[in-house]
Amino acid sequence: MGKIGVWLIGARGSVATTAVAGAAAMRAGLTARTGCVTELPDFAGAELPGLGDLVFGGHDVVDTPLVKRAEHLAAAGVLPSTLPGPVAADLEAAEARLRPAPSGSGREAADRIVADLTEFREGLDHVVVLNVSSTEPPCTPHPAHESLAALEENLDVLPPSALYAYAAFRAGCGFVDFTPSTGARLPALDELARTAGLPYAGRDGKTGETLLRSVLAPMFAQRALNVLSWSGTNLLGGGDGATLADPGAASSKNASKQQVLAQNLGRDVDGEVHIDYVPALGDWKTAWDHVLFEGFLGARMTLQLTWQGCDSALAAPLVLDLARLTAKACRDGVAGPVAEFGFFFKDPVGDGPHDLASQYAALREWAHR
Amino acid sequence: MGKIGVWLIGARGSVATTAVAGAAAMRAGLTARTGCVTELPDFAGAELPGLGDLVFGGHDVVDTPLVKRAEHLAAAGVLPSTLPGPVAADLEAAEARLRPAPSGSGREAADRIVADLTEFREGLDHVVVLNVSSTEPPCTPHPAHESLAALEENLDVLPPSALYAYAAFRAGCGFVDFTPSTGARLPALDELARTAGLPYAGRDGKTGETLLRSVLAPMFAQRALNVLSWSGTNLLGGGDGATLADPGAASSKNASKQQVLAQNLGRDVDGEVHIDYVPALGDWKTAWDHVLFEGFLGARMTLQLTWQGCDSALAAPLVLDLARLTAKACRDGVAGPVAEFGFFFKDPVGDGPHDLASQYAALREWAHR
Amino acid sequence: MGKIGVWLIGARGSVATTAVAGAAAMRAGLTARTGCVTELPDFAGAELPGLGDLVFGGHDVVDTPLVKRAEHLAAAGVLPSTLPGPVAADLEAAEARLRPAPSGSGREAADRIVADLTEFREGLDHVVVLNVSSTEPPCTPHPAHESLAALEENLDVLPPSALYAYAAFRAGCGFVDFTPSTGARLPALDELARTAGLPYAGRDGKTGETLLRSVLAPMFAQRALNVLSWSGTNLLGGGDGATLADPGAASSKNASKQQVLAQNLGRDVDGEVHIDYVPALGDWKTAWDHVLFEGFLGARMTLQLTWQGCDSALAAPLVLDLARLTAKACRDGVAGPVAEFGFFFKDPVGDGPHDLASQYAALREWAHR
Amino acid sequence: MGKIGVWLIGARGSVATTAVAGAAAMRAGLTARTGCVTELPDFAGAELPGLGDLVFGGHDVVDTPLVKRAEHLAAAGVLPSTLPGPVAADLEAAEARLRPAPSGSGREAADRIVADLTEFREGLDHVVVLNVSSTEPPCTPHPAHESLAALEENLDVLPPSALYAYAAFRAGCGFVDFTPSTGARLPALDELARTAGLPYAGRDGKTGETLLRSVLAPMFAQRALNVLSWSGTNLLGGGDGATLADPGAASSKNASKQQVLAQNLGRDVDGEVHIDYVPALGDWKTAWDHVLFEGFLGARMTLQLTWQGCDSALAAPLVLDLARLTAKACRDGVAGPVAEFGFFFKDPVGDGPHDLASQYAALREWAHR
Repeated sequence: MGKIGVWLIGARGSVATTAVAGAAAMRAGLTARTGCVTELPDFAGAELPGLGDLVFGGHDVVDTPLVKRAEHLAAAGVLPSTLPGPVAADLEAAEARLRPAPSGSGREAADRIVADLTEFREGLDHVVVLNVSSTEPPCTPHPAHESLAALEENLDVLPPSALYAYAAFRAGCGFVDFTPSTGARLPALDELARTAGLPYAGRDGKTGETLLRSVLAPMFAQRALNVLSWSGTNLLGGGDGATLADPGAASSKNASKQQVLAQNLGRDVDGEVHIDYVPALGDWKTAWDHVLFEGFLGARMTLQLTWQGCDSALAAPLVLDLARLTAKACRDGVAGPVAEFGFFFKDPVGDGPHDLASQYAALREWAHR
Repeated sequence: MGKIGVWLIGARGSVATTAVAGAAAMRAGLTARTGCVTELPDFAGAELPGLGDLVFGGHDVVDTPLVKRAEHLAAAGVLPSTLPGPVAADLEAAEARLRPAPSGSGREAADRIVADLTEFREGLDHVVVLNVSSTEPPCTPHPAHESLAALEENLDVLPPSALYAYAAFRAGCGFVDFTPSTGARLPALDELARTAGLPYAGRDGKTGETLLRSVLAPMFAQRALNVLSWSGTNLLGGGDGATLADPGAASSKNASKQQVLAQNLGRDVDGEVHIDYVPALGDWKTAWDHVLFEGFLGARMTLQLTWQGCDSALAAPLVLDLARLTAKACRDGVAGPVAEFGFFFKDPVGDGPHDLASQYAALREWAHR
Repeated sequence: MGKIGVWLIGARGSVATTAVAGAAAMRAGLTARTGCVTELPDFAGAELPGLGDLVFGGHDVVDTPLVKRAEHLAAAGVLPSTLPGPVAADLEAAEARLRPAPSGSGREAADRIVADLTEFREGLDHVVVLNVSSTEPPCTPHPAHESLAALEENLDVLPPSALYAYAAFRAGCGFVDFTPSTGARLPALDELARTAGLPYAGRDGKTGETLLRSVLAPMFAQRALNVLSWSGTNLLGGGDGATLADPGAASSKNASKQQVLAQNLGRDVDGEVHIDYVPALGDWKTAWDHVLFEGFLGARMTLQLTWQGCDSALAAPLVLDLARLTAKACRDGVAGPVAEFGFFFKDPVGDGPHDLASQYAALREWAHR
Repeated sequence: MGKIGVWLIGARGSVATTAVAGAAAMRAGLTARTGCVTELPDFAGAELPGLGDLVFGGHDVVDTPLVKRAEHLAAAGVLPSTLPGPVAADLEAAEARLRPAPSGSGREAADRIVADLTEFREGLDHVVVLNVSSTEPPCTPHPAHESLAALEENLDVLPPSALYAYAAFRAGCGFVDFTPSTGARLPALDELARTAGLPYAGRDGKTGETLLRSVLAPMFAQRALNVLSWSGTNLLGGGDGATLADPGAASSKNASKQQVLAQNLGRDVDGEVHIDYVPALGDWKTAWDHVLFEGFLGARMTLQLTWQGCDSALAAPLVLDLARLTAKACRDGVAGPVAEFGFFFKDPVGDGPHDLASQYAALREWAHR
């Protein structure tokens, strides 16, 4: 494959900055490829674009330069303190390809995004648009979401994430939603993707509590243990924490978290999920899960777990994986949802398995097709 | 299948008593089949013996009657307080088939066991011998372990668990080692099992910390996360706790625990495992694991988990599963180690996968062969 | 001291049933005095009423007999399975002294309670009324709460817990609120208690998460460590769990929980407290706390703790302690709030210390006055 | 008070480097005084030496310059990445006052230390020697430890920490042992300190698991809860982790950890303590404690806690506190063990209280004497 464009919605955020800086650091041999799934031996020979073939651009509503953002992340311990210097030139190259988030009516904004993407894709083989911006509240259903024809009459019914998906498809790009926002998940947009012969994937990157749930819930099921309740509390700071402190935005996230349990256990399970904004945690998050289960002869037992992770470090390599894999899907002419990327998501599009082991097997097989 | 004999080494122990009482309670419809893997829909149609077809007998060094043991377990909250009454008749029926653990030279003891098993198997289609007694220290290697011919000259070189395996094969029974003891894992005994056309499986039931490790280690591997250390502390009371407080016995157990990590992560990992005897915990055990791992750009993150379980409640249904599955192996003429039973064990015989998801798939497929 | 009456509001609840059954079991020598603060050597010689001097009665809205309740609690593992039998006679004796919760207008209900208490106190030296019923939502302020004269004109402005406090004082009894409800905490009721020369104490028994906070927050303060956030999640089943799943009732509870931190740390601290109703937990509760703190040179560190307790077992002995201590306060003519009982409460009346060590010292000194 | 000398044994270690760098940073107003007990309002007016009055020197067996050590600690995230630059001059000033650890016979080494201390104390009002070097194995008892006269005949029977204590007293300095080593805790050295009119304190700084135990054990005792077992696992990297991986050294540490429980609970408690060396943790340590306790009517309950701290950040400010407080003790002519410093130690000298609250009160009162 030739050059691949990676267009990031939320390009100045922690995840995007970490992805761009990290790709540069790996290319320069400054760091190992830890966290990159597509660098595992299982994916050797899958003909994915190389890290050196990725060209970064994107939109954002803020205008702090990427170099500045990287310095902030290094000061906060999210990036190694020695990283920003050696990758400054790469960050500046990406900086030159960033564009302000468009405003105006739905149609005006969509046209602006299409124009930005069209300009960006010059000289690139394929472009993948990835949404790594803040979580939106759930979107109010509207009849115009149901068909492309109706939607074309009224783009104002689309939340921003869906408008980006619309524009991505119009500009001939693949689309990935790494957030729990609406993205491409409307019948009208699915229709557009299929018509245009473009792939999409999502949604909501699985980087902590839900990742664990997708291996532990199958374990309980396979051992015939009866899960009575599964409760979770998530503490996080940073921009995502602030967004998710809003009950509307949190409700999107929580629905996909409990759904993983229901899918793996075959029924709904008692228990709440809390997302608390704890500003002092910065980019770090802590998840505590408590599982009450019943075994032989009704014995009551518990599992508790605490996951302490750095959100950007967990998400960024998956963003790079998805860019590479979606570029391959573009090249291979995959149209519509790519269910085989469910390994990466809390709430995957399409009709794939729900346990991580099967998701990994499906992904590996897809990559070698 | 007709009647199946289930011969338990350590037949008056907590695990055995719980298995016998639980099988009776399930047959009588007093309790759900929670914890029984072979009762899952995935195993419907596998032509396993029914719970009503199992006939229990066994050896033990102590002589507390099973009914008494069940009452003790109920008082300690291991069995439901209402259970012992309704299953007393079943426990007494098993009681009548228990025999004292044999003494004397290796040859004398083996002959005694063979005689007991031969008497027991009258009227039964197949007999499966399961070792659920206390953990032995690792066995000192001896040249006579290497071939059946050499072994027959000197049965005194066998630790008790291996002597039971020898006698089981001589008596035409399948053998399962649910403990980390030697059991059938000597070349001479493997030769005997193959010659006699009998199956064996083991070893060391996977009921807590290692069960979790066998789903979590693959998760780290599949996400390309670099595990830097994996430390564990196990607190347990009961007979097993007292046995494992002995460093010799604990070393058997610990080796199989760390091995699961090495197999799933593809390399050895730093970290110790402790087993502490805490008498006041009785039949309950608590395991705490701490995993330090490295993600993208070297970010340091941790996972901690605490598992609080009732050892007998976790082990007993698996003993019943293994009895049923091994009976099928006997009927089907499987000879030698059954690698497909690795789902149940910390340190499985044969050459199967090491992650729980693949082990489950292998077991399910085997059951439907 | 002679006989002491212990009148329980919520007399058929888990806490009350456990207290009555436990007092009987201790009197009969069937169990140790674990959990009873007033049985510690530090309280020897304090001239408190003996356990044999306590006579139990009370009100409740439900009518399940105490013996039945005790059997349910034993089946659920809250009481020892062998307990209900030997204490049945004591439970029946208390049963005969229970009265239905009164209905009607505030005045009618108050008159009924006063009449019930007056009948009960015949032959008793002192009577202590303890509220161990379900938590009420916070009470809407009303001008008539401000003075006894105004209140006498309109008893309908009192929530049930306050009506009981009013009637207790009118009937010459001491009053203790073990819940976060309003109880005696209104200026008009304080006026009544002082006028009548009667003691009161409360509120909200400190039995888990807050107990821990009252020793850990002082530790951080004394070590000059800067607590950045303190988050908590409480999982509980049982009646209290169901009540607290209501945001109104929970808000009373949460306010007193965070207040303990503010009082001990000298400022408000970031962090939310959740109370989740998990029916399968029954009378058991689990609290997880996460503390993020800053040390020397800004180093970020954390403390996490998990408390797994049986609510009734934690609360019941304190109810007995408070009955005995409040009887002493009655005898000694203490009028108004007893700040020295702050050791027992999340949100103590009066002006006492907030750390557990000082509260214990204050209680011990008071007892020997 | 005028200038105070702070002589550190192990002056190039993490704790010492952090203390020297931190004192400089606080003096320069670059950081808050978090973690410094003597900076709390409770200690205002105690006439302690100011941070600006402390002059640092010391011995070490290694010779990496302090500036280099500070850079390493900053790269490892133990010190803020921006700290080493601004405090480099202070570190170099201390560097000039460091001396190599002496060798030779006991007498030769002692003479060398006395000479170094005598040179150092020129122009200083008082000098305090603090041992912050690696933990020694327990010292073999010897008759010459029993009296000063006997000891003077044979200084070779002293382990290094005790030789430093001997020399400190000979040179007219106070002595503090922040490690579990022998230090001044021999009758002969106590005799010397009293004869010379010099104070000493120790031993083994209380910075994590034991700190928590000293507030939680009293809580259980005051609530009449019966602790059945208290188990602990400590994971740590760094130099201290490597030292404590040696069973001999660990045994010193573990004895003082379990002793705090016995002293606060009034009896020995079941449960082991493990110290595991996990190199990847670097200067960070994680402690997990599991407490099984019994409440009313024998109900079994548990408390678990996880402490994740930076060893140097926890210890360094206490070293500064102890230097200031011991300087005051020198000025006031305190001779022998200072029991009132028990607040800082796992295994305090003298006969003070064992719970943290009483220890804090004793320290505060002492400071204002």
